[in-house]
Amino acid sequence: MTRIRGGLGAVSGVRLAGVHAGIKPRKRDLALVTFERPQVCASVVTTNEIKAAPLLVSADHLKRSGSTQRALVCNSGCANAATGERGTRDARATARQTAALLGLTTHEVVVASTGVIGVYLPMDRMQKGLERAVEQLDSGGKSAHDAAEAIMTTDRVPKLAAYAFYRGKKRYVVGGIAKGSGMIAPSMATMLAFIATDLPLSQRAIQRALRAAVEESFNMISVDGDMSTNDAVYAFAPAGHASAPAEFSEALRSVCLDLAYAMVADGEGATKTLTMHVSGARSTAQARTIARAIINSNLVKTALYGEDPNWGRVVSAAGAARAGLDPRAWSLLLNEKLWVERGGIEVLSEAEAHRELEETNVSMELRLGIGSAQATGWCCDISRDYVRINASYRT
Amino acid sequence: MTRIRGGLGAVSGVRLAGVHAGIKPRKRDLALVTFERPQVCASVVTTNEIKAAPLLVSADHLKRSGSTQRALVCNSGCANAATGERGTRDARATARQTAALLGLTTHEVVVASTGVIGVYLPMDRMQKGLERAVEQLDSGGKSAHDAAEAIMTTDRVPKLAAYAFYRGKKRYVVGGIAKGSGMIAPSMATMLAFIATDLPLSQRAIQRALRAAVEESFNMISVDGDMSTNDAVYAFAPAGHASAPAEFSEALRSVCLDLAYAMVADGEGATKTLTMHVSGARSTAQARTIARAIINSNLVKTALYGEDPNWGRVVSAAGAARAGLDPRAWSLLLNEKLWVERGGIEVLSEAEAHRELEETNVSMELRLGIGSAQATGWCCDISRDYVRINASYRT
Repeated sequence: MTRIRGGLGAVSGVRLAGVHAGIKPRKRDLALVTFERPQVCASVVTTNEIKAAPLLVSADHLKRSGSTQRALVCNSGCANAATGERGTRDARATARQTAALLGLTTHEVVVASTGVIGVYLPMDRMQKGLERAVEQLDSGGKSAHDAAEAIMTTDRVPKLAAYAFYRGKKRYVVGGIAKGSGMIAPSMATMLAFIATDLPLSQRAIQRALRAAVEESFNMISVDGDMSTNDAVYAFAPAGHASAPAEFSEALRSVCLDLAYAMVADGEGATKTLTMHVSGARSTAQARTIARAIINSNLVKTALYGEDPNWGRVVSAAGAARAGLDPRAWSLLLNEKLWVERGGIEVLSEAEAHRELEETNVSMELRLGIGSAQATGWCCDISRDYVRINASYRT
Repeated sequence: MTRIRGGLGAVSGVRLAGVHAGIKPRKRDLALVTFERPQVCASVVTTNEIKAAPLLVSADHLKRSGSTQRALVCNSGCANAATGERGTRDARATARQTAALLGLTTHEVVVASTGVIGVYLPMDRMQKGLERAVEQLDSGGKSAHDAAEAIMTTDRVPKLAAYAFYRGKKRYVVGGIAKGSGMIAPSMATMLAFIATDLPLSQRAIQRALRAAVEESFNMISVDGDMSTNDAVYAFAPAGHASAPAEFSEALRSVCLDLAYAMVADGEGATKTLTMHVSGARSTAQARTIARAIINSNLVKTALYGEDPNWGRVVSAAGAARAGLDPRAWSLLLNEKLWVERGGIEVLSEAEAHRELEETNVSMELRLGIGSAQATGWCCDISRDYVRINASYRT
């Protein structure tokens, strides 16, 4: 398996574009992804009870088309969420317009949106933007970069990832683009990822592989319960094999991990990242629950920003998860150095710990000492800029 | 029922003091509360799996003494949490020293701590501080103010509340002091409240009344799952009535609500408060779950700071709670004016909503439109100062 350039544009049969439709001032705000062959499509979407219109419309399309998708269209600048029946009509019209321009049926198009909640899509601009996008459709890294840019909101950089792998002598690719930089807190900011492969798979096989990859990646930078109204991951493949080979699952997992880490590193106002390993757990579920509690703690994240060696916040967040911690058994490592052992004995001095925390990418390992399961979560710090950015998102 | 001055010092039979023991530089850091008569004691403590030593020692004392408490001692500047067996010995020694100075048995003393986790109590300073506190014991508002000051950490103001009520012609008082200003987020910052009444009650009666009052007050400014290692509310009463009269429960509830609101208003870096009503719910539990999800959202709180009329964040947080919201039935009010109705129709203009958000104390009501139960939660905004304060708490 090799990490390659080009993201979603590195997958053969994929053509895409990212254009300025005028939903936002000046910037690219409309992405179009098309597939040469009909695709099966897997999805993992938000569990929020308020789901954006494009999610509901796409779910309906996936059901009706019997999973033969041919295109995906996504705008930024407007979430089309909490927009009632008009929102649903607008999302469907977007798919219909896209289908008309590409010579497809409406149900073959997946739609997605990200941006402000409670605002209607400017449908006239969407139509013109779609026409422009169809004209600019292309394969390769440049157009994938444009598309990744067109789905950004507060993101500072476009997010692309791709891996090549072999089945016998034949080379395949898994590639994706994503957006999301508001994941540094239990937050409502939208996370979107669009992934494709040229390895033929059944819908069932890709759905199962996607679910597993998401659990370890996107779900470990945010908590399910805090998903936004618009969160969605869609993965496409040509119809084929009934089960996903290990090489594919590994490549898919790597694409998801890279995109998830890119979101954390590009977190709103972020200056540092924390990779939080939880080991010695009784079960993976326990390790994940505790890792999530730590990466979601505002106090852990502000201490990270301040390079403050306040390990008490880490273990207090772990204990607050009530996942079955033994308060005497745990040890904590900082950048692979033993920091605190057996429930509270400081091994690293405050000055030594502070020096370790000066690194841009900090890692910690909380060893629970009660089993052998493990999990990893990622977060960035909460800086003053986080507050500045979020205090005036809408106005 | 009348709101009166003096907090815990307004309760007859209570003598207290707040002194500088030297755990922190310069400031008062040791509070002592004594009771003329033996007291029954009710408690609600953190559910964090990592519990501070004083909580474990106090629980043991409450059990052994058969609930006849005579004193409470609390230090700030050191949480005595994650301090292992030495921490437990220190907490017990604090109680023993206090008991010796007051002529009590060790089990009659409740101990509490707040401050940095993972640091040992300076026992020599504690001893000298206790001697000074015993000398300064007094009734009334001044000493209650000193004691409230001595338990502060990042609090800007001491927190006191008291209410007088009548049973026939006899006047009784419920009064308390509290600390906690780190509750503006799902956070680990310690919340402590010490409450007493001169109305004789059984331990069972005051425990039940305290539990109910805490559910509506302190638990509605923070999430249980995020309680710190040291959170505790203790309520004292002379032994007596097997059941709490309604007048008492109401006064206790008012004391708890006042102290809880004081914590929010004094939140770290706070510039505004939000009173979040959730009405039209199927059950109180549902209304509370949704209210808590909203007041714990970083995005709601940063929008509040920025006076940004981003109602989407409020309803997205509500939906993320997955408590059974109907996405078409809800309406949202801002300062009692209809803001958004029936799942997404904006009634107030953005400019009007912005003007309402300029108020220092903002209120919102989310009407779920599916039942008749309700709940209220409180939070403050997250400002840039929140980050500044928490980035360097320990260093």
